[in-house]
Amino acid sequence: MHATARAAMRSVVGPGHFRETDGELVPYSRDATPLFHARPDAVVFPADTAEVAAVLDIATRYAVPVIPRGAGSNLCAATVASRGGVVLVLTRLNQILEIAPAELLVRIQPGVTSAALADAAARDNLLWAPDPGSRTVATIGGTIATNAGGLRGLKYGVTRDYVLGLEAVLPTGEVIRTGGRLHKDVAGYDLTRLLTGSEGTLAVITEATLALRPAPATAGTGVAYFPDLAAAGRAVTAIIAAGILPATLEFLDRSCVRAVEDFARLGLRTDAGALLLFGDDGESDTVARALERMSDVCTAHHALDVTTAAEVAQAEALLAARRCALPALSRLGELTILEDATVPRPRIAEMVDRIDAIGAHHGVTIATFGHAGDGNLHPTCVVKSQDDADTIARAESAFADIFAAAIDLGGTITGEHGVGAAKLPYLTMQLGADQITLLRRLKTAFDPAGILNPGKLGS
Amino acid sequence: MHATARAAMRSVVGPGHFRETDGELVPYSRDATPLFHARPDAVVFPADTAEVAAVLDIATRYAVPVIPRGAGSNLCAATVASRGGVVLVLTRLNQILEIAPAELLVRIQPGVTSAALADAAARDNLLWAPDPGSRTVATIGGTIATNAGGLRGLKYGVTRDYVLGLEAVLPTGEVIRTGGRLHKDVAGYDLTRLLTGSEGTLAVITEATLALRPAPATAGTGVAYFPDLAAAGRAVTAIIAAGILPATLEFLDRSCVRAVEDFARLGLRTDAGALLLFGDDGESDTVARALERMSDVCTAHHALDVTTAAEVAQAEALLAARRCALPALSRLGELTILEDATVPRPRIAEMVDRIDAIGAHHGVTIATFGHAGDGNLHPTCVVKSQDDADTIARAESAFADIFAAAIDLGGTITGEHGVGAAKLPYLTMQLGADQITLLRRLKTAFDPAGILNPGKLGS
Repeated sequence: MHATARAAMRSVVGPGHFRETDGELVPYSRDATPLFHARPDAVVFPADTAEVAAVLDIATRYAVPVIPRGAGSNLCAATVASRGGVVLVLTRLNQILEIAPAELLVRIQPGVTSAALADAAARDNLLWAPDPGSRTVATIGGTIATNAGGLRGLKYGVTRDYVLGLEAVLPTGEVIRTGGRLHKDVAGYDLTRLLTGSEGTLAVITEATLALRPAPATAGTGVAYFPDLAAAGRAVTAIIAAGILPATLEFLDRSCVRAVEDFARLGLRTDAGALLLFGDDGESDTVARALERMSDVCTAHHALDVTTAAEVAQAEALLAARRCALPALSRLGELTILEDATVPRPRIAEMVDRIDAIGAHHGVTIATFGHAGDGNLHPTCVVKSQDDADTIARAESAFADIFAAAIDLGGTITGEHGVGAAKLPYLTMQLGADQITLLRRLKTAFDPAGILNPGKLGS
Repeated sequence: MHATARAAMRSVVGPGHFRETDGELVPYSRDATPLFHARPDAVVFPADTAEVAAVLDIATRYAVPVIPRGAGSNLCAATVASRGGVVLVLTRLNQILEIAPAELLVRIQPGVTSAALADAAARDNLLWAPDPGSRTVATIGGTIATNAGGLRGLKYGVTRDYVLGLEAVLPTGEVIRTGGRLHKDVAGYDLTRLLTGSEGTLAVITEATLALRPAPATAGTGVAYFPDLAAAGRAVTAIIAAGILPATLEFLDRSCVRAVEDFARLGLRTDAGALLLFGDDGESDTVARALERMSDVCTAHHALDVTTAAEVAQAEALLAARRCALPALSRLGELTILEDATVPRPRIAEMVDRIDAIGAHHGVTIATFGHAGDGNLHPTCVVKSQDDADTIARAESAFADIFAAAIDLGGTITGEHGVGAAKLPYLTMQLGADQITLLRRLKTAFDPAGILNPGKLGS
């Protein structure tokens, strides 16, 4: 990195917010993705939009890669400095600027965490619907940049469905405002949605206007055990076919249930092949009716055992079982490789069978949990030792096969985690060469100098 | 248009599907937008994706403008051949390819009408949610290309929220497939949403995969009369603030109510200043409760009179009153100029006052109806004679002021109708020069030769 660029950026943010020593760079050399790391040349912490614009302007002039980042909790190596440069950390832009209950919206800076936004909305009896697993640490900027999903996708959609407007800084330093406070606005190309999920490769989001919903009056959850995941998958298809679109439809396979029970002692039944969590929210009689109907469908589809939680506290405990699937599995080894291949809902059972066969073929154990209602599976491989290169290589081969299987079944290599550096090698298989060429032209339209998060989406 | 290009296109679609005589060109010289017309050089009716691709390939090679179009029911001159060229009519691609109830989706060609899709979905007890006023004639291709809204936007969103995947032909002839059958899919930039609302300027949509919803069990509607639109606007704000997100919140001002009653004899009260329709759908007890709560809010906010429809047939009659607002107004003169300036919901009353003042200033009468729940207003000016150039000029000046007022109140020049040729002169005022430059670069990334719908969005 050019010394003049370094000095200019330091001068923009102030010496206290420009880090460049080895010790300061280490925490920003990786994100939550295992196996990917690269040391940046510097880390800058701008205070506001003007400082972001100034940093980007310098970066474009001196051809310095800039990697925008919040908490770095993404799982696709989207914020690793693959080609060096400057990690641009947006956590100082951490204000909720406005909550407007009459308009069901919030105006917010990118550094606020998803959980903090949800808490603030709840105080006004409003719901921030997107609910990624990393919600307590993930920032809203990253939530938008990855179009994060989560546990409520089936009923409430994903982050994209809640982004009304953005302020963003182009790599060349111009500040644009897309969309606004309206649910209906068709003035111009939909840059709001194009920036959502663009993984920090097109522009840096410095403010967002997000839609909230009225908070549901109550919520309820049930649990059903099945002989295997395929049977649970058939029950999920039957629930949707019955015209129910519930807030929660999550499943865990036997390995996950056992890991969770070992970890959290929730009293789960560990002899079944699969656990299905189902739940809904809304007015209490509607919720009760939905739970009863889903219970009946599970029973009709050979559930071994079905119970519903009569109280919110019990329902929360059941959801906690799902939320701790990843930490529970992670305890089993030094390295946890978590993926999110996604297939059409009716193909879940088939996909689960394929994952099992692929794991067996490569000699690795793959546990699967995920958002059954979305067909969004999280096959997970835990490797005992970080130094076991052979097992890691076999796990990577297995996941390559899993991506191919997802595409073959009409699905995607990534339902909610993103492409980043981790999935870029598989993207052509998903989109085809013509579309990849088009993505590159789009990237260039935003970022002619190619400074924003190079080596990721659009490269 | 080059004779070789003409011959090549004729050969692609066959002589029966290539039109070039004066009489054949007249119907394709305008769309539903008053005051805009331009004669194309030819009209082609391709049979399938391959023919679309072949036509575009020829057009790019010979620099022939191509204007994709369905029914031409858009209201922003998005399908007028402003720079000549070929109108590419997609009505022969008119098949519903697949309805998959277990996946809540439909795969469909662009030439099917919105109403035909809704009917087909209803036969499987499913709902096609987007509900534009032009639904009986508008094609799905145009619905997607304009990101059409409609009467159910507040609860159900707009077309964008239902587009899962697209097959589209790039201006250079390549066929791409974006998205797919999944609600969660983050593999690549969100081209699905970028093409949605791009008004035929980036690519030609040849197939779409669209999300359906379980059909609601029942629906109910109520009507409240208010002293003026501002009072109705305050009631709307109070309904949302009470945590209700209903399927219907539509209003008509006094001029509209009188025109509708003259036209349709529905027994509407014509002495009030405004009529508010409110309604919801879902399970019957939920709907009854929502209607009761909305009635109470209207009464508390000085409604002159509130009634709810006990039966679906009565509810349909009330919605018909809203649906016939435009035809009823259109009877009053030869020329109807309909706009869709949109403002944040709490600013509705203020915007209505501004519209009245602007109309008075320019000496034109402007009637207003629209989607109150979205802040999406349709101020409408009826001109008695098409030849009254003076009144038309004053109406156009009034609308320019209305757009400026919408922006000033934090709104948009177009909530759901689109930009087309009609609003392009106002777009810089909305988006700023930097964003306009970016839109042009985006357009070029898709369409280097600039052949697709030139003179519209992205120009």
